[in-house]
Amino acid sequence: RVDGSRLWATIHETAAFGGTPAGGINRLTLSREDGAVRDWFRDACLAAGLEVGTDALGTQFALRPGRDGARPPIAFGSHLDTQPTGGRFDGVLGVLAGLEVMRSLNDAGIETEAPLLLVNWTNEEGSRFAPAMMASAAHAGEFTTADILSRRDAAGISVAEALAEIGYAGEEPVGARAIGAFVELHIEQGPILEAEALTIGVVEGGQGIAWFDGTLTGFESHAGTTPMNRRRDALLGLAELALAAERIALAHAPSAVITIGEAVIAAPSRNVVPGTVRFTIDLRDPQAATLDAAEAELRAALGEIAGRRRLEAELTRIWRKAPVPFDPRLVDAVETAAGALGHPHRRIISGAGHDACNLAGIAPAAMIFVPCRDGISHNETESATPEDCTAGADVLLHTVLALANG
Amino acid sequence: RVDGSRLWATIHETAAFGGTPAGGINRLTLSREDGAVRDWFRDACLAAGLEVGTDALGTQFALRPGRDGARPPIAFGSHLDTQPTGGRFDGVLGVLAGLEVMRSLNDAGIETEAPLLLVNWTNEEGSRFAPAMMASAAHAGEFTTADILSRRDAAGISVAEALAEIGYAGEEPVGARAIGAFVELHIEQGPILEAEALTIGVVEGGQGIAWFDGTLTGFESHAGTTPMNRRRDALLGLAELALAAERIALAHAPSAVITIGEAVIAAPSRNVVPGTVRFTIDLRDPQAATLDAAEAELRAALGEIAGRRRLEAELTRIWRKAPVPFDPRLVDAVETAAGALGHPHRRIISGAGHDACNLAGIAPAAMIFVPCRDGISHNETESATPEDCTAGADVLLHTVLALANG
Ligand SMILES: NC(=O)NCCC(=O)O
Ligand SMILES: NC(=O)NCCC(=O)O
Repeated sequence: RVDGSRLWATIHETAAFGGTPAGGINRLTLSREDGAVRDWFRDACLAAGLEVGTDALGTQFALRPGRDGARPPIAFGSHLDTQPTGGRFDGVLGVLAGLEVMRSLNDAGIETEAPLLLVNWTNEEGSRFAPAMMASAAHAGEFTTADILSRRDAAGISVAEALAEIGYAGEEPVGARAIGAFVELHIEQGPILEAEALTIGVVEGGQGIAWFDGTLTGFESHAGTTPMNRRRDALLGLAELALAAERIALAHAPSAVITIGEAVIAAPSRNVVPGTVRFTIDLRDPQAATLDAAEAELRAALGEIAGRRRLEAELTRIWRKAPVPFDPRLVDAVETAAGALGHPHRRIISGAGHDACNLAGIAPAAMIFVPCRDGISHNETESATPEDCTAGADVLLHTVLALANG
Repeated sequence: RVDGSRLWATIHETAAFGGTPAGGINRLTLSREDGAVRDWFRDACLAAGLEVGTDALGTQFALRPGRDGARPPIAFGSHLDTQPTGGRFDGVLGVLAGLEVMRSLNDAGIETEAPLLLVNWTNEEGSRFAPAMMASAAHAGEFTTADILSRRDAAGISVAEALAEIGYAGEEPVGARAIGAFVELHIEQGPILEAEALTIGVVEGGQGIAWFDGTLTGFESHAGTTPMNRRRDALLGLAELALAAERIALAHAPSAVITIGEAVIAAPSRNVVPGTVRFTIDLRDPQAATLDAAEAELRAALGEIAGRRRLEAELTRIWRKAPVPFDPRLVDAVETAAGALGHPHRRIISGAGHDACNLAGIAPAAMIFVPCRDGISHNETESATPEDCTAGADVLLHTVLALANG
């Protein structure tokens, strides 16, 4: 069993890096705050006797050797970056529970057959740079390192520049480390476990995700002198699109969700009819076919709106992550561990994307969920109980031990 | 008659200050570019033998003494600041035509009875600081100088700081100069004169304007895990409000116009349901009663949307400018000048706000419009012909002479 109070203490100690007055964390990937928590994590891993390395995308690895150095390590972890309105558990729990697993094994003097590898993946959140789960995707060969290094944030700063800025452009080539299996502990970020009073979610897979960048272009004109029927107002076009997106998602209820999370008027002024609006769309569904159908419906709606309002429309799909099924043997291993520890559990599909979904492309992967209050995440009020965090870390420990010694 | 080619040359010479690649001007009030064009204007006035002064809000005055120093000067001018997507004529024409009037009188050796006063008003546009026509309103006693100095832009910089930054915090108390009458030449910024092939608009008054700051607050949540029916999406609330505003304006057709020119998601992220959106509303109508009715309808729509979507809504009216009728005697003087010069003309109501609307509160005021291409303004493609600009400057010259010698 892990030391739950030590785990809880590290969760709250690291919450100071980027901590917000409202009790959340604003720690965008590769920011100064992210650099500080990385330093903390490196030092903690070194203090636990782990061998620490960093790859060219800043992902941090901490290895605990096993008896059989020829076996690929059993890996686990998550991410320490957060949303701008992030909470204390999303990602953080998985990394610090992994650290707690290492510390607990040290305390108990347990040696494993396979080596163990704790990972802090760069830019899981996808808020500062797109796509989300960027570094694990590159590790799994979905993008080249050069491609990812060239991605830019809204201020025009590239991943390469941001890595250099905080000193986390590592030496290791991306994807060089073989991984025998990957297990990720995470808060559910949804309401199901809490509603059913369960402690553990045995995650069977992740739903599909499509991300889009869009632009609507009309014509800037005077707010006082341009009659309503002569306007080409890009914001009104976006307004119709946002409501159409909501209708499309509801038409594929209850599974599909569509979100316009960013929308920016290019040259905003109170007395100018908006001429250009740039926006993003996030579309998800567990079924690939529904993802495709909803995308077609979004494009049709955008075309109709743009035509009627005399706007030019552009919509580029910048990312598509197909639905991911996890490895049945690993899912069973998680379920067995939860059962052996006596934690009430159920199988569940992840609504969020996770690094484990990328690792699933190159190794057996699975996830462990614990409940969070009201299903709230990507919000500063995100909350989970110490008991549930401890239970999740225990399931992680037992799953990892079963895999490393099996 | 003025020297039309000299006027045209100054319009294009000053367009270099803040000139954009698309041929427009981005010269927000009290910006570095605004400071540079002010320096140019001061030097040009000094070279024309005028007595130059600046008030505490940065408004520039250039006096040409008359035979009767006891008479309050006949004032004219407009503004040299622009929108972020501004054109070459909005405001600029009125100031530079005023300079051309001074130069032409010098060339012809004409002395007037009353002194003449050319004015470049600070922050007519209202894009960087609210409200529009800020300095002329303070001159007319609608706001105190201290109040205006404390207004802040989106970056938090106050008017006082911005004035100091470009060295235009002048010595003169605001409103200290008596003004006998005010005449402003401006492009129409609407389509009427062009459509009717007329050269001069004899402006009878300006429509009413109300400006609002609004906030919609919902709850940030995860774009992948939050079911559509559990969301409190502030952007969807704004989308409905924008479309309701359009419907309300159309219900008061053809006169009322409503514009949401600024809309900002507080903590934007692709995979976060927007929790807070801040926005502005610009509402106009020539009738005060319609202004009030439309405001009530906007508030009702916002309340209904917020209630249904479980959002909190705030809407603050930060400015209300009642419809302004110009002085009948001055309007007649403009019409007489246009007729005497043989320019086809009609009476017209201004859809835009102008400094003359504020001056009307303390002195007889009137305006002269010339056509602009397709009625386009607050856009980099704003355009007017040299012939129309010259005609407008000639009408200004004749009106001013009639008033100063009458
Ligand atoms: N777990 C998580 O919130 N990941 C961020 C990527 C996503 O939007 O699903
Ligand atoms: N003339 C002009 O464009 N003034 C700006 C203030 C307004 O929006 O009417």
